[in-house]
Order: sequence, then structure tokens, then C-alpha cells
Amino acid sequence: MGTDTLQSRIGVAIRARREAMGISQEDFADHIEMHRAYYGTIERGRRNLTLVTLEKIAVGLGIPPSRLLKEAGS
Amino acid sequence: MGTDTLQSRIGVAIRARREAMGISQEDFADHIEMHRAYYGTIERGRRNLTLVTLEKIAVGLGIPPSRLLKEAGS
Repeated sequence: MGTDTLQSRIGVAIRARREAMGISQEDFADHIEMHRAYYGTIERGRRNLTLVTLEKIAVGLGIPPSRLLKEAGS
Repeated sequence: MGTDTLQSRIGVAIRARREAMGISQEDFADHIEMHRAYYGTIERGRRNLTLVTLEKIAVGLGIPPSRLLKEAGS
């Protein structure tokens, strides 16, 4: 997968939002009850996320899933 | 899963868009090169869609994936 896929772009958008919250990857993963290593691969654009996982992350970030997709340019 | 889950709501939103195009489930599934039976389960809210599948459907409907999520109330 190139850097221009939706899954890559959404990883970037998630990371930007999480960093804007001033929280580490590890703390955020714990907060949303997700395995830290798995969460890390999402931010690196390595996962073809499901809606359930996307929603879980969006809830943790305090934004609607549609907003996250929009910030990912989709 | 209840009728109020994101996957149920997105099925409803996809169906509404597809019907607005005046195209049958079968023809739409063929158009986006997806198995007809599988596509039918998506409209019925039975699938925890991945981003790749969501994008494929959104492209077929001619709208951004974020728009589809928004129409699903998310």
C-alpha cells in the first residue's frame, strides 16, 4: 500500500488528532482499550480498519467518524 | 447487533443512495465488482465493513466515504 491509500491517510489523521490531545500512543490505546501494538500499526497506516474499530477510535478522539474520514481527505 | 449500530445505519444510507440512483442491488453489486449476496448483507447491516470496502461502495455511489458516514448519522 502506498502512502496515498485511505488507510494511510486515516492513520495520519488519527495521529494528528491524538497528538493534538497531548496524549501518548500508549496512553491513548489504553484509554480506548486497544492493544498498544495494534493501535500503533493503525497510525502507521498498516490496517484496513473496520467501522467498529474506526468508531472506537473516533469516540476516543471525541469526534464523529465522518470527521476523521474528512480529515483524511475522504 | 441492534438497528442502531453504525453498521446498520450505514447499510440504510447505502441502500437509500443506491435506490436514488434507480439501480437494482444486483446491478450495483456488478458495477462495483462485488459479490451480489455479500453486497446484500451490507445493505442489511450485517457487515462490519472495512475502509477498503466502504471506499469501493462510496466510489460506486459517486460520493466521498465521509459523506456516507455522515448520512448514517456518524
